[in-house]
Amino acid sequence: MVVNSNRVEHFDNHESMINIQIELPPSPPLEIHRVRLPPERTTFQKLKQRLSEIFFPDDPLYRFKNQTCLQKLLLGLQFLFPIFQWAPEYNFRLLRSDVISGLTIASLAIPQGISYAKLANLPPIVGLYSSFVPPLIYSLLGSSRHIGVGPVSIASLVMGSMLSETVSSSEDSILYLKLAFTATFFAGVFQASLGILRLGFVIDFLSKATLVGFMAGAAVIVALQQLKGLLGIVHFTDKMQIIPVLTSVFKQREECVHNIKMVMANHCDGNLLPGLPVDKRGILHKAHGIAFIGKLPEGINPPSANMLYFDGHYLGVAIKTGIVTGILSLTEGIAVGRTFAAMQNYQVDGNKEMMAIGLMNIAGSCTSCYVTSGSFSRSAVNYNAGAKTTVSNIVMAAAVLVTLLFLMPLFNYTPNVILGAIIITAVIGLIDYQAAYKLWKVDKLDFLACLCSFFGVLFISVALGLAIAVGVSVFKILLHVTRPNTMVLGKLPGTQIYHNLNQYKEATRVPSFLILAVESPIYFANATYLQERILRWIREEEDRIRANDESTLKCIILYMTAVTAIDTSGIDTICELRKMLERRSLQLVLANPVASVVEKLHHSKMLDSFGSRGLYLTVGEAVADISSLWKDQA
Amino acid sequence: MVVNSNRVEHFDNHESMINIQIELPPSPPLEIHRVRLPPERTTFQKLKQRLSEIFFPDDPLYRFKNQTCLQKLLLGLQFLFPIFQWAPEYNFRLLRSDVISGLTIASLAIPQGISYAKLANLPPIVGLYSSFVPPLIYSLLGSSRHIGVGPVSIASLVMGSMLSETVSSSEDSILYLKLAFTATFFAGVFQASLGILRLGFVIDFLSKATLVGFMAGAAVIVALQQLKGLLGIVHFTDKMQIIPVLTSVFKQREECVHNIKMVMANHCDGNLLPGLPVDKRGILHKAHGIAFIGKLPEGINPPSANMLYFDGHYLGVAIKTGIVTGILSLTEGIAVGRTFAAMQNYQVDGNKEMMAIGLMNIAGSCTSCYVTSGSFSRSAVNYNAGAKTTVSNIVMAAAVLVTLLFLMPLFNYTPNVILGAIIITAVIGLIDYQAAYKLWKVDKLDFLACLCSFFGVLFISVALGLAIAVGVSVFKILLHVTRPNTMVLGKLPGTQIYHNLNQYKEATRVPSFLILAVESPIYFANATYLQERILRWIREEEDRIRANDESTLKCIILYMTAVTAIDTSGIDTICELRKMLERRSLQLVLANPVASVVEKLHHSKMLDSFGSRGLYLTVGEAVADISSLWKDQA
Repeated sequence: MVVNSNRVEHFDNHESMINIQIELPPSPPLEIHRVRLPPERTTFQKLKQRLSEIFFPDDPLYRFKNQTCLQKLLLGLQFLFPIFQWAPEYNFRLLRSDVISGLTIASLAIPQGISYAKLANLPPIVGLYSSFVPPLIYSLLGSSRHIGVGPVSIASLVMGSMLSETVSSSEDSILYLKLAFTATFFAGVFQASLGILRLGFVIDFLSKATLVGFMAGAAVIVALQQLKGLLGIVHFTDKMQIIPVLTSVFKQREECVHNIKMVMANHCDGNLLPGLPVDKRGILHKAHGIAFIGKLPEGINPPSANMLYFDGHYLGVAIKTGIVTGILSLTEGIAVGRTFAAMQNYQVDGNKEMMAIGLMNIAGSCTSCYVTSGSFSRSAVNYNAGAKTTVSNIVMAAAVLVTLLFLMPLFNYTPNVILGAIIITAVIGLIDYQAAYKLWKVDKLDFLACLCSFFGVLFISVALGLAIAVGVSVFKILLHVTRPNTMVLGKLPGTQIYHNLNQYKEATRVPSFLILAVESPIYFANATYLQERILRWIREEEDRIRANDESTLKCIILYMTAVTAIDTSGIDTICELRKMLERRSLQLVLANPVASVVEKLHHSKMLDSFGSRGLYLTVGEAVADISSLWKDQA
Repeated sequence: MVVNSNRVEHFDNHESMINIQIELPPSPPLEIHRVRLPPERTTFQKLKQRLSEIFFPDDPLYRFKNQTCLQKLLLGLQFLFPIFQWAPEYNFRLLRSDVISGLTIASLAIPQGISYAKLANLPPIVGLYSSFVPPLIYSLLGSSRHIGVGPVSIASLVMGSMLSETVSSSEDSILYLKLAFTATFFAGVFQASLGILRLGFVIDFLSKATLVGFMAGAAVIVALQQLKGLLGIVHFTDKMQIIPVLTSVFKQREECVHNIKMVMANHCDGNLLPGLPVDKRGILHKAHGIAFIGKLPEGINPPSANMLYFDGHYLGVAIKTGIVTGILSLTEGIAVGRTFAAMQNYQVDGNKEMMAIGLMNIAGSCTSCYVTSGSFSRSAVNYNAGAKTTVSNIVMAAAVLVTLLFLMPLFNYTPNVILGAIIITAVIGLIDYQAAYKLWKVDKLDFLACLCSFFGVLFISVALGLAIAVGVSVFKILLHVTRPNTMVLGKLPGTQIYHNLNQYKEATRVPSFLILAVESPIYFANATYLQERILRWIREEEDRIRANDESTLKCIILYMTAVTAIDTSGIDTICELRKMLERRSLQLVLANPVASVVEKLHHSKMLDSFGSRGLYLTVGEAVADISSLWKDQA
């Protein structure tokens, strides 16, 4: 195949492209395309585009384009208060669905509220308060139609464990309550600011793998904490970790056995079953030494803004707890909202959801509520009961209101041991061993992150366990960047397709060429590695050629499609590699560099040194052009 | 173009490949290739390969393959002591070159040693000691032939600044000296362990951009510190940062003016010029209140192992200083070694170099030396003077030995003000503003990392400035992963090449198709973003189609070549995206997924749900096959 390729080359910066034009003979297949620079942009334009991709990837204002002023105003109102989107079309049929689902989630919300408040070591009534105000706020601001708002298990137990490490809820209950409201306030501020600053991607760093391990670890910790109530241990440890708790149980095993016997005896006497008059039951229990909830105050949420705590010794703990519970509840709320939105084919705006959840927590912290979010269990029930809009949250709040005003005495004699049992049943469901097994099967490093967060939570602490898991996840990303894949490509017979020799056994090497694909951006963190790895590939290829007595290696083609970015270290590396290979009479050619890489090579004056036969659009064209040149020279 | 494509499909896991075979009509161009799974490997095999890529990317034992026992022993000795590689072939001609270059670098090493020791606030003689023992150790173990070993400016000044923050070198000089030797010991231990654990890639995280900023910042700080000696200020600040130093100078400006006048007067009297007898010069200077070096002890390095400091209050500072100076000197040493190795076309083994430099610092810490490494200036002189092997280091050490034994009195009356001037001249050269300008032109984020380390060092502290700069570099990597590029591809007319529409203006959209390239691995950190971004591309494409009245969108092709990895979150995202698009009667197709992605899709049972028309080897084949199907259906 001899081709007369009279090349006409010129670099034309004004048109910001590199023209490598070739006058071709009429016959195929040697048609060489030009590698082009992307249109030139100023630094400001680039910065603007970069920032808008970081902060406004969803282009939130696209609805406002090409609209009249009045429409813009209406859209703006709808944007701020999604209630305006569906309110005009609200009708009786929707209302009926919402009432049914609202009452259904209320029936779940009341026992759940009490149990979760106990999880957080808070008075049970706080759990009910938290199912009243926040759902009302959310129904005004939230963009998900199926979320059921209320306390969530994970944030409750994290709040319980983090605050208990500093303040005992039994010994100094007022201070504890103050800290809980303060933490809720900071959680809300943190969540709302993430939304306002459009930093929603922060929660993306909690991967599903991390959360699976975290929830399982937290569930074990909470279940263990319930041993105090279940076994009736008086001198229980203040710590949350598995070792001190088990030690504590083991030390007081005789007391435990005694208490269990007593509960069993009570049970056989039928004392735990309904039937006896309420007052008498309480007296009986007290005589047997079994603790129960006690009198719950009637009436709606008292204001608690005066209990917020902005100075002094414990502020740091409150802020830390607020941030950790805030991020955890946000993760659950956003994930739940997105899940149901995907099922019903509408969009939930992550940053707006953050603002809604944040504002509802700020409001909650002033009305005796603790951290709330979109609860997974409540939302699932809501969705299945046929909820259509957030009106179901309003219905639930109304039902809780009725309970708060009139039905509180019914709960007075619920024994703590039963609450403990409810909590254990609830949290055991958080241990998703099937998901963990799937992680193991699909991605071992994800499984490692999962294990790290599980054991971190179990043996070290909730916050640190989470931090370790996030660290492992980030380390995984960095590892991939530091040690990227490189592989040898071969040609699929009869095509112009070049592919991984290892994956496609029918692909064959092209004599005298070594075609390497680099599967990562070239950064300072991997530039040295890549240089050495490429040199090793060349050494191995030369050894192979010597062993098989094939034609000598003359050209190395770097397939750059997956090199999606390059920095100054990367450019230096390629430049140096090129010089080193030149000294060994080997040619280095780049195939299909992406726009940003071509641009950087151009700015660093590297393109000129590569010249016309250093840069090709495809591997096929590079091979054809260079081997035709060799034939011409021969 | 109507094609009868009778598909024969079967999924065959035993052969670990997905066969999507198509019986083709004789006429081109519709030939569909199968997407294959890579050969199946066990978890252990994968782990082994992954670990060997992380820790042994250079395949250090390749030399030992297919060798006899005796040869292996010899190669092993050569591996541990590179001196065995060149010693058998050493001859008089090489020795002559090495002697000349060794004497040349000795003439540089002596004033440099004295100045750099002053930089580290150490007695000048320590600088000379450090040019004697470490070069001897390195010449046994090091694999670079051109490195000139000795103290380096950057590590010297960092040691000076970090130790001075805790202990004053003038008030408690013995403790300061102890801490310096201890820090050197820990620097050596840290360096050697990086090499032994094959964690050499840690130093890759100090990018060139970071180092440019860091060196410039450190140079300014050191130059400012010399103001004390130059201006003869007695009550100088202990701090290293720019603000306290300038404040200190400003407060004592009258004293400064007086001192400068005096030095000028001395100069005009000719007192700084040689000519007067040595003794008389000293007396004269003293009378004028100008400080000079003073008497330097004669004799070789005294042992200092007894001065190492392993317990007590300052151990933490010593370890921290050791690690920071260790990593900085290592970076310089390795970079210098690699540079000259590349120029002479031989390989330097990073991990072995770390061990050599580490061991030489451990030995140095026991013989009154402080941190040494391969010095850039010394190595450049060595190389240009014609050095051939590390024997030039032995010659230099011998020359320093002679100086230590016999020539010390010559240095007694060197005025401190002159040392200060030498240091300022040396460090000003470290401010590489041209490199900074190039960073600005090529990569704005690299420039930002550079600025951060510059101002961090200048205003905060050396260690923190470095940490901030590394943080910025890592953040840059994470940012790229969190917000990866996505772009629309079009077809280059008359080819099967699909490329970025933005970069190649002649490329055209294919009607009814939207071809998107994702330019990053799909991870937990970007899965949500990518899903939303892809939905936005689809929305924008549909808007565009409506505006131009084109044929409706029916199929989205994700071009996956640059998706070099995927984790469980990524798989869930693709699965969810597919379902969402299905509900909108849009087909989602993957083109050219890489081996690891196909493998993970397979393990997570996703491949089955994609079926035969969900996965193609190239975009061209996907477009051809799917549009032929549409035509069949029409």
